[in-house]
Amino acid sequence: MAAKNAFYAQSGGVTAVINASAAGVIETARQHRDRIGRIYAGRNGIIGALTEDLIDTGKDPIAAIRALRHTPSGAFGSCRYKLKSLDQNRREYERLIEVFRTHNIGYFFYNGGGDSADTCLKVSKLAGTLGYPVQAIHVPKTVDNDLPITDCCPGFGSVAKYIAVSALEASFDVASMSKTSTKVFVLEVMGRHAGWIAAAGGLASSKDREIPIVILFPEVAFDREKFLAKVDGYVKQFGYCSVVVSEGVKGADGKFLSDQGIRDAFGHAQLGGVAPVVAGIIRDGLGLKYHWGVADYLQRAARHIASKTDVEQAYAMGKAAVEFAVKGHNSVMPTIVRVSSKPYRWKVGMAQLSKVANVEKMMPKGFISKDGFGITEKCREYLAPLIKGEDYPPYRDGLPQYVRLKNVAVPRKLEDFTI
Amino acid sequence: MAAKNAFYAQSGGVTAVINASAAGVIETARQHRDRIGRIYAGRNGIIGALTEDLIDTGKDPIAAIRALRHTPSGAFGSCRYKLKSLDQNRREYERLIEVFRTHNIGYFFYNGGGDSADTCLKVSKLAGTLGYPVQAIHVPKTVDNDLPITDCCPGFGSVAKYIAVSALEASFDVASMSKTSTKVFVLEVMGRHAGWIAAAGGLASSKDREIPIVILFPEVAFDREKFLAKVDGYVKQFGYCSVVVSEGVKGADGKFLSDQGIRDAFGHAQLGGVAPVVAGIIRDGLGLKYHWGVADYLQRAARHIASKTDVEQAYAMGKAAVEFAVKGHNSVMPTIVRVSSKPYRWKVGMAQLSKVANVEKMMPKGFISKDGFGITEKCREYLAPLIKGEDYPPYRDGLPQYVRLKNVAVPRKLEDFTI
Repeated sequence: MAAKNAFYAQSGGVTAVINASAAGVIETARQHRDRIGRIYAGRNGIIGALTEDLIDTGKDPIAAIRALRHTPSGAFGSCRYKLKSLDQNRREYERLIEVFRTHNIGYFFYNGGGDSADTCLKVSKLAGTLGYPVQAIHVPKTVDNDLPITDCCPGFGSVAKYIAVSALEASFDVASMSKTSTKVFVLEVMGRHAGWIAAAGGLASSKDREIPIVILFPEVAFDREKFLAKVDGYVKQFGYCSVVVSEGVKGADGKFLSDQGIRDAFGHAQLGGVAPVVAGIIRDGLGLKYHWGVADYLQRAARHIASKTDVEQAYAMGKAAVEFAVKGHNSVMPTIVRVSSKPYRWKVGMAQLSKVANVEKMMPKGFISKDGFGITEKCREYLAPLIKGEDYPPYRDGLPQYVRLKNVAVPRKLEDFTI
Repeated sequence: MAAKNAFYAQSGGVTAVINASAAGVIETARQHRDRIGRIYAGRNGIIGALTEDLIDTGKDPIAAIRALRHTPSGAFGSCRYKLKSLDQNRREYERLIEVFRTHNIGYFFYNGGGDSADTCLKVSKLAGTLGYPVQAIHVPKTVDNDLPITDCCPGFGSVAKYIAVSALEASFDVASMSKTSTKVFVLEVMGRHAGWIAAAGGLASSKDREIPIVILFPEVAFDREKFLAKVDGYVKQFGYCSVVVSEGVKGADGKFLSDQGIRDAFGHAQLGGVAPVVAGIIRDGLGLKYHWGVADYLQRAARHIASKTDVEQAYAMGKAAVEFAVKGHNSVMPTIVRVSSKPYRWKVGMAQLSKVANVEKMMPKGFISKDGFGITEKCREYLAPLIKGEDYPPYRDGLPQYVRLKNVAVPRKLEDFTI
């Protein structure tokens, strides 16, 4: 069988380890020259395929590809661009196949979350219909940890580690200050639909290092009085308290707590975060001095404090995707299968894309403590191995040496395409 | 000369390395048993001295004291409590001397910023007047980097490293997303009076890794049009842009930009950060998609990414303070003297407290670029060595192993004292 070229693209919000998956794909594909010819990447994700803006990853040296393993963000550019359904926009799918056919691409590796798993499945189906078969393999990635079947999602473990470490450090800080100054620190974290990331804040506290942390999950309707009582109790007991609040927390009315209709002096709508809202509730309700922070992109870009487990899994997913492809698989996604929690052991599994696409894995009810403000032992057992191990990038002059690729374009052969 | 006991206290906002100074004081003092007897610490800073709440550091094992070197925050508790002038509150100074006399304390090590240098000086003077001489040595500490004479202040280098690394990582993230999504990332950093910390964001960009970063300094009056033009230009050139904004940025009217009189739907005043204000200006002025983060305590507590230079200097300041004391010095502060920038070499110096107290070192004008949005080569040369080197704490189960001391109280001998 003649070698076909491969196409790899990054999709959606980037992470500290999505480039490790890229390295896994590219380095493994390079070991299969008999089956895989050139390895192309989409500039800015799937848009690169649609606009025939392909990057020849072969133009970057081996060392640069290897450095992707320790470089956060999406080295080829990502995009937030969801292909519509086949009925609504068959034109785009046909264009993809045209570009693949023109560049002799037989392997489609799509690195993303739930939406891209769906796209990947559709591409695979349509390719068959149009008589140009493409093996489509999805590489899992999402800090939201909401893909089904796989035990966890690459990208999540490193965010979890960042939040656990940050909550720990900030708690030490506020504890030091609490006698005369700040008594409550509020940290806003990502997670609009599920509380996986907020839950990781709970890891800062443990049996041998108890820290008063109140977690506000999007799964639990915010109850002002219960919350204030919890904070008040902790401050009375410990002298201080930390709050880890998910951006997606909603009130009993189903509205985001962050969406408070805040206006400036001129009546212009202001950009709320939920952290200042929660801090305001503490100020008004308890009169305590507070500080608040919003981690935002820092949490998902923080390769400097990435989880070794996460880096290894991200790389393994990229590697497995290529291995699945050369074995002839199609419409599948490699998964992380947990073999045991203590000691933590995992292996690579395989899921059918039809079972992954459009399924969102929520946090199990049994992971949130009864009062709604903490994590259970079961949750701790699940999360703990995912933040395990450090995997520091190399440094020069005090800064991590993250790589920037040359990203040399493959010459275009087709007409322009407007997206 | 009979040995006297020592008293050590932490003052003001804590840092990632103030405990390294504590380790320097305690470990060095333990080597001078002929001159220094017990080493006490104030629980919650100077309040511990006023209320006779002393901690016997000898009750914690050697390993725990050693672990202070890699533990952020103030292990004995800090406080924001400024002693009034002698005229206004002679009672407090006299109480301090009474506590020192009662516990045979002959050495006063005060670890803080400008205010505590002033307190330290006053204690030293009054002790002489009251006939119970105490050697008062100030140990420099402040993330604000605003103490005079010393080339830099322990605590600043680690914040600078955190901000430089975070700005780098977030810039990589937004660059990946910029084709279809976020084009500007705004990061709010500390520094109400001086732009030292904001300046550190400029280190993320270098000759061989250019990153479009706009810095908003408290030293430069905010000019909306000039700012929007700068951001617009960068986004047109690079496709994205990062903004590092100091919490202390003011408008031409001298008012904090963060103080926008923001109100919620019910008319309640809201807690502003400056990051959402700047993000709103970008949205309204340029219509670009943005994200914003507020580092707050995370930046000064982030021992996990501390600067090795900073840790070493913090320890050295604690060590030098004790060495000065046993040599008979009084009313002095050890300083960091820069011998050369390339290669970076420094040594310990000594400053008279009378020249330190109540003097604030601002950022030199020549450190801010002409357009007011960046740092000069001179500034880069100053900052670069301060973030150099990594000094990772030990980890267990994915989290740094920060120490918590037992902090055993010394039995009280005096009447209660109300502060």
